[in-house]
Amino acid sequence: MDPSLIPFFQPKGIVVIGVSGNISKLGYGVARNLVNSGFTGAIHFISKRRGNLFGRPIYNNLEEIPDPVDLAVLIVPAPGICEALAEVKYRGIHAVIVISSGFREVGEEGEKLEREMMRIASESNIRLVGPNCIGLLDTHLPLDTTFLPPPMPVAGDVAFISQSGAICAAIIDWARGQGFGFSRLISLGNQPDVNETDILDAVVEDENTRVLTLYLESVNDGKRFVEVAKRVTRQKPIIALKVGRYASGQQAAASHTGALAGRDIAYQAAFKKTGIFRASSTEEMFDWASALACCPLPAGRSMAVLTNAGGPGVIAADALEINGLTLAELSPSSHSQLAALLPPAAGLHNPIDMLASASPQLYANCLKILVDDANVNGVMVILPPPPTHLAEEIADALIPIIHTSFKPVVIALMGEYLIKTASIHFRMARVPEYRFPERAASALSVLVKRSEFLNLKEEKTFIFQDLKTELAREILKKIKPGNWLGQDSVQLLMKSYGIPCSEIKLANNATEARDFSQEIGFPLVLKVASADISHKSDVGGVLLNIQTPQETEIGFNKIIKNVKLLDPEARLDGVYLQRMSPEGHDVIIGSIHDMQFGALIMFGSGGVEVEGLRDIAFSLAPLNKTEGLNLIKETWAGEKLFGYRNIPRADVDAVQEILIRLSLLVSNLPEISEIELNPLRVFTSGAIALDVRVRV
Amino acid sequence: MDPSLIPFFQPKGIVVIGVSGNISKLGYGVARNLVNSGFTGAIHFISKRRGNLFGRPIYNNLEEIPDPVDLAVLIVPAPGICEALAEVKYRGIHAVIVISSGFREVGEEGEKLEREMMRIASESNIRLVGPNCIGLLDTHLPLDTTFLPPPMPVAGDVAFISQSGAICAAIIDWARGQGFGFSRLISLGNQPDVNETDILDAVVEDENTRVLTLYLESVNDGKRFVEVAKRVTRQKPIIALKVGRYASGQQAAASHTGALAGRDIAYQAAFKKTGIFRASSTEEMFDWASALACCPLPAGRSMAVLTNAGGPGVIAADALEINGLTLAELSPSSHSQLAALLPPAAGLHNPIDMLASASPQLYANCLKILVDDANVNGVMVILPPPPTHLAEEIADALIPIIHTSFKPVVIALMGEYLIKTASIHFRMARVPEYRFPERAASALSVLVKRSEFLNLKEEKTFIFQDLKTELAREILKKIKPGNWLGQDSVQLLMKSYGIPCSEIKLANNATEARDFSQEIGFPLVLKVASADISHKSDVGGVLLNIQTPQETEIGFNKIIKNVKLLDPEARLDGVYLQRMSPEGHDVIIGSIHDMQFGALIMFGSGGVEVEGLRDIAFSLAPLNKTEGLNLIKETWAGEKLFGYRNIPRADVDAVQEILIRLSLLVSNLPEISEIELNPLRVFTSGAIALDVRVRV
Repeated sequence: MDPSLIPFFQPKGIVVIGVSGNISKLGYGVARNLVNSGFTGAIHFISKRRGNLFGRPIYNNLEEIPDPVDLAVLIVPAPGICEALAEVKYRGIHAVIVISSGFREVGEEGEKLEREMMRIASESNIRLVGPNCIGLLDTHLPLDTTFLPPPMPVAGDVAFISQSGAICAAIIDWARGQGFGFSRLISLGNQPDVNETDILDAVVEDENTRVLTLYLESVNDGKRFVEVAKRVTRQKPIIALKVGRYASGQQAAASHTGALAGRDIAYQAAFKKTGIFRASSTEEMFDWASALACCPLPAGRSMAVLTNAGGPGVIAADALEINGLTLAELSPSSHSQLAALLPPAAGLHNPIDMLASASPQLYANCLKILVDDANVNGVMVILPPPPTHLAEEIADALIPIIHTSFKPVVIALMGEYLIKTASIHFRMARVPEYRFPERAASALSVLVKRSEFLNLKEEKTFIFQDLKTELAREILKKIKPGNWLGQDSVQLLMKSYGIPCSEIKLANNATEARDFSQEIGFPLVLKVASADISHKSDVGGVLLNIQTPQETEIGFNKIIKNVKLLDPEARLDGVYLQRMSPEGHDVIIGSIHDMQFGALIMFGSGGVEVEGLRDIAFSLAPLNKTEGLNLIKETWAGEKLFGYRNIPRADVDAVQEILIRLSLLVSNLPEISEIELNPLRVFTSGAIALDVRVRV
Repeated sequence: MDPSLIPFFQPKGIVVIGVSGNISKLGYGVARNLVNSGFTGAIHFISKRRGNLFGRPIYNNLEEIPDPVDLAVLIVPAPGICEALAEVKYRGIHAVIVISSGFREVGEEGEKLEREMMRIASESNIRLVGPNCIGLLDTHLPLDTTFLPPPMPVAGDVAFISQSGAICAAIIDWARGQGFGFSRLISLGNQPDVNETDILDAVVEDENTRVLTLYLESVNDGKRFVEVAKRVTRQKPIIALKVGRYASGQQAAASHTGALAGRDIAYQAAFKKTGIFRASSTEEMFDWASALACCPLPAGRSMAVLTNAGGPGVIAADALEINGLTLAELSPSSHSQLAALLPPAAGLHNPIDMLASASPQLYANCLKILVDDANVNGVMVILPPPPTHLAEEIADALIPIIHTSFKPVVIALMGEYLIKTASIHFRMARVPEYRFPERAASALSVLVKRSEFLNLKEEKTFIFQDLKTELAREILKKIKPGNWLGQDSVQLLMKSYGIPCSEIKLANNATEARDFSQEIGFPLVLKVASADISHKSDVGGVLLNIQTPQETEIGFNKIIKNVKLLDPEARLDGVYLQRMSPEGHDVIIGSIHDMQFGALIMFGSGGVEVEGLRDIAFSLAPLNKTEGLNLIKETWAGEKLFGYRNIPRADVDAVQEILIRLSLLVSNLPEISEIELNPLRVFTSGAIALDVRVRV
């Protein structure tokens, strides 16, 4: 953790500036929560009016306050913020939480005020959380600087970091009802100083936190976020609920935080690169979090389902399938053990249906057989209200088996009143329980994803010895920003990074064409070179399958003649010569520069399918070998390269190498704003770009 | 309603056979629930041991029981069922609920017993619900023949029909906790007699039921289900949770109910044809049900979001987009009214962010403006725990506006304890409330779907005057079941239904080829006819672009010579002649026969895309015009026919007509088991099948 952030998480003494005895004021709430939180360090209050609050004196100014004090919580009206901050500085405090609102989020005036506040903070080496936030909460320390109504959330092992205060408030209240525990809650507010990335780094070190959850509207610095998150996810899982996913959502995000939300595709790529799990709803985020916090990780995707009724078993089987998991094939030994225990009408084929009469002991015995089966990587136990036993008796029988298992076990506990006590027993025992099999299956799937992520070794970017970055930089230097490179420069640039590219020469006259044709080789294509002509074949401007130097010369003249006749206005630059390429798979490879995250690499189907089918995938540059291969596999265009039915396998390795080289080019030379190889033609052996466009 | 089912839903007197004084027996539970239910008709008990139960005498046999009695509930051990049924018959009762298990679901012995039971029931005109079920429950009558632990579910307007008893039990308990009310609950059990379709027909007439929900593992008679459901959905919405969706789920379903689950694609097509909404989870089913039961239907897809915080507003905007809804553009008048009411920092661009201080009155006033705006079709109100007011005060201010609005309003009520009272107020007022914006958005979207469904006029199947069904039947009669039709028969069959099909002639010698060529016209393709040769071009067996009768004759001889040289073993039937078709869009059209639902029509991309991309869609035959068009639109192959970028529009009308004609062919002639037009080539004007295969 950045040492300057330590006072936020391990303060020795806290001063609240702007407390109030008026119960409807936020300054009252903060004082109440801080006192009630059980914080063991010093707590001091400041207000304009002296007096007493919760048995403590209210001081008038910071100078009066005894040591230690290293964290200030400010709830003063926005216009007074700079004055308050000056006092804080004078008192030698370097960590401040500004709860107050009335800054950037209210418009131009507030933005000015926020800038002025930040100027003072920076000058004085003061770190600042907020403004316009709810504050910090740590259930283990304990500490609570929020103004939210009591009680505090239950202590737990999930940290929640939020860019929206209202979401924080709703989540705390909701989680309390779910019996869901938090380790820390951090409301970030407008984030002119401390932001989501700083907090990731600080929270991952917290020994009480096992999972980090994020409500994210945007990130402050995409590249730094990726770098930090990559490190953090190796230690602890991060789940993000990223909103502003769609056009309309983005609009709302922009008007809300005043921050420009990055393009969603870039966020998706950033999550993929860092191993952050993206939840699609708030409930999913916390369903996943409890599984990740409480369960061991499975070694594979084969799951067993243990149920006392057929219907929920069918739902579970469907749900596992939807989540990419499979129903385990039990070992013969498990099968015969189960057969010995269960009544004849029971279902011995996974899902194991013990029938409605299943006793607590039977539940426990069957679960033990399942977790001991080498073919089983994890278990979902289904528990609807049992007709002849109490659900909590079954819970109590299951819990010891679950606690001694090295495989994850999640519970689909169906119902409400009849399973309430069982639910409490499971929660106390840290066994994740979900109301329906669908949610339990999703939880098992995130455990599999986490396990697969950790099994992937960290992989360095592949190093090519032949990259000529200096040469490439020289080529780009000659181009004005915003402009497209000419064909000659494009060819040189591709060569400098070893990206195979079909040679194109511009001939100004027939003799030149003849000479170039011998350099390039046959068969050739001739195309008129003119910025004024968009449909070249319509004006007789294209000739295919030119076989000899003589045909080239004749062809040159023919094209010039055709075009002059059919489009006399067009300005002509000459005629392009290009070697004709044999048939192959046409794919598209490209890169665009994202303001937040840097270069994104795209791979997908060529032709109309790119837009019509959206058969494209993106990754953040630079790519390592696995990322290059995965990017290809994500699309139907890529799947076809591996061979499909009567389509033979194409040279996937060549495409992978080109993707990696291109990703290094755009990473090393961020001045490239856009680049497109369309098509890249892929053969049984080798691949070549037929048309390349590059913009600076 | 089938008159024979009336005693199940309006019994005059009920007898429970197999009551027990032992609290752990199901026979105790049924007696208790029936007495406690408040049922106003006669209630009688029968057991082997005389005595008293809940203040009523226990009789020994049915003869002793006074009139009226028209419904019997049986909880006798399975082996005694036939004897009990004989008594029931003797007493003149024609409606029976068999709660007992031990029948088909336990294996062969049980299946025999179930058949014997049904034999007696059929002979005696007894209608039978169950066996292996939980029974019936009607909260309005009221009536409760289940053995589930009390209390009864809250009275409501959603009926739940379930093929799984355990799901029933779990749902009743869960719904109680959600404050969710039911009108009727029907547990169907093994369904040898009364099944899901019978019940649909019976329940739709119930004036207390507004929405029908179904937990479905399979249907008994697909065609009847479709016919009944089409009628029912015109009156009241049906939501189905169909399980056994995936391969593994289907396996579990088969071993559970013993019924063969129809292919999921056929179910999907049946739901599409009938307007049944398919929920993807139990929670989604009931989220939708409460919206459909309580809300007026929206006139369009434009929704407004009213919030007191930015974050949840962003989540809502995202969620609306995911659900295919749009954020309404407010009218200028609404905009200025809102501007006048709200503080300067508020967000006036939909989602409307009133800021955290929003009072109950402000919530109400803003909601009024939104529902009165002609550009708004519905509203989502977001209510996280408000920092300075009570959530229930806001609920109370909103409810009168919602009650007088003709547009749907749903609430995203975020939290738990702090919104508990508000939640109760909303429930009492029949305003649907959801814990998170994601679920509220999904509820709005089902309202839109229902509205769009009801706006679609019922459309009769299009009648073509030129269909020659008798002729087609004659052609098919000559083919042995399981066999493929020869090309001549295929041609005649297609002609009989006016489906354009490229003519193919089989020539046995060069002279015949020459004569045929003049009949068919040029240019031609020649192909060797031999069942032994799979790759015709590899042995010189294909000649393209034949232009004259003379070339045809030469071509015939050349092919025979080539093939004899390169594949001397192959048996030759002659040479096929086919007119060469110009370039066009190749699509695939086909039909397969589903055991449950009859003929399914398929449309999709030709070539490897069919399987690789799964760019295909299915509908149940016969198709009306709208269904034909929708089937085309569901795929990317179809989208391209309408023109896309540089692809010109093709003759969609011709494809639509061919789809309808084909759907009539397979509906009128169910002996066709499989048919495939691959490819159907589509031109700017017209379309023609180049290759057709038909199996009987």
